[in-house]
Amino acid sequence: MDELKRMTDIEEIRQLKARYFRFLDTKDWEGFESLFSVDAILDMRSGRGDNLDPDAVIQGASAIRAFVSAAVQALVTVHHGHMPEIEITAPDVARAVWAMEDVLYAPEDSEMPFRSLHGYGHYHETYEKLAGRWAIKSLKLTRLVVHTT
Amino acid sequence: MDELKRMTDIEEIRQLKARYFRFLDTKDWEGFESLFSVDAILDMRSGRGDNLDPDAVIQGASAIRAFVSAAVQALVTVHHGHMPEIEITAPDVARAVWAMEDVLYAPEDSEMPFRSLHGYGHYHETYEKLAGRWAIKSLKLTRLVVHTT
Amino acid sequence: MDELKRMTDIEEIRQLKARYFRFLDTKDWEGFESLFSVDAILDMRSGRGDNLDPDAVIQGASAIRAFVSAAVQALVTVHHGHMPEIEITAPDVARAVWAMEDVLYAPEDSEMPFRSLHGYGHYHETYEKLAGRWAIKSLKLTRLVVHTT
Repeated sequence: MDELKRMTDIEEIRQLKARYFRFLDTKDWEGFESLFSVDAILDMRSGRGDNLDPDAVIQGASAIRAFVSAAVQALVTVHHGHMPEIEITAPDVARAVWAMEDVLYAPEDSEMPFRSLHGYGHYHETYEKLAGRWAIKSLKLTRLVVHTT
Repeated sequence: MDELKRMTDIEEIRQLKARYFRFLDTKDWEGFESLFSVDAILDMRSGRGDNLDPDAVIQGASAIRAFVSAAVQALVTVHHGHMPEIEITAPDVARAVWAMEDVLYAPEDSEMPFRSLHGYGHYHETYEKLAGRWAIKSLKLTRLVVHTT
Repeated sequence: MDELKRMTDIEEIRQLKARYFRFLDTKDWEGFESLFSVDAILDMRSGRGDNLDPDAVIQGASAIRAFVSAAVQALVTVHHGHMPEIEITAPDVARAVWAMEDVLYAPEDSEMPFRSLHGYGHYHETYEKLAGRWAIKSLKLTRLVVHTT
């Protein structure tokens, strides 16, 4: 594979995921939806401990937007990604593991099962390049630990 | 634009910002000042919650050094940056958004309004390359949340 | 030096260190050992505040694996690295500084001197490329601050 192409693909995927975090935490839901393939899959089944349905497997960019925005719209959230292992597995196809940390704060009058949540884990993702633009094709969250107050 | 040049510029800006954090937290103020353009602007007006003047807009590398070193010299500080979205907008001109986290600890006998501060937000920055070296031209901090004890 | 080679070397070292963190926190000790040169050195003498021997200087990939796995096997650990300053100093030779954060949780019935530990600091590392693969040749940890409960 062309090494320069591989480097620019990796950088584009890094920036795709950077927008994922920024749009999520600043609640730019139109931007957020645009980062996913139309038929993308969000698998939160191992993302235990937060306020999401533990059986949640969501399909489709618009369903992912609806699901995630409903889950966090009332919260202050901080999601950070670290140390990506991005592998271009074929032209316009890639996968990655990211370390992650999230911090969520529920409002005073919230019916959430926590006031604050602080968790750590990994995102396991796949990507595809469509019409010249990388998109998230699948995202699966696994957890190392979650603390709530 | 030459793609390899773009990749090396992005890497140089990543390492410029890495030195920003390391020099800040290890209190290497001469190194810190050297990272800024002579007429750089530091805009902390949205960096609410910490011990800085909420109206602070500081101009000039030496004034930025004086302002920041005075603010944190007595504290233990940890500043981390994440997930940069670095865009080379013209030859030798760039901008970026960085996610950030900061942790500050005031000494026991401090007159600071907090004992510890833990915050999250984003840096919005511009850069210029002068005499072959990237420098920070402007830095604006926005906050997602700040907690103090 | 060839700039594209330098970019791919830097990316490979980033991913080497990403595997270091992932293997450590998921306790994949065979993978962990494989990241180090046979005669690698782990210097934890400035890594004060955690549960490691403060005089620890360990030599050899298998000794490093034995030392680290014994120290953390019973704990939940999260180690994140940030903002690497990676410098290729000669063909197949490199060094880097990484900002780091670690969070350790001891089990309820543990004899550890802490229930939880939250620390920040820097890794100072060297690398060498052997048989086409980058490996960690030395790792020294310094601390900004460590808190325990």
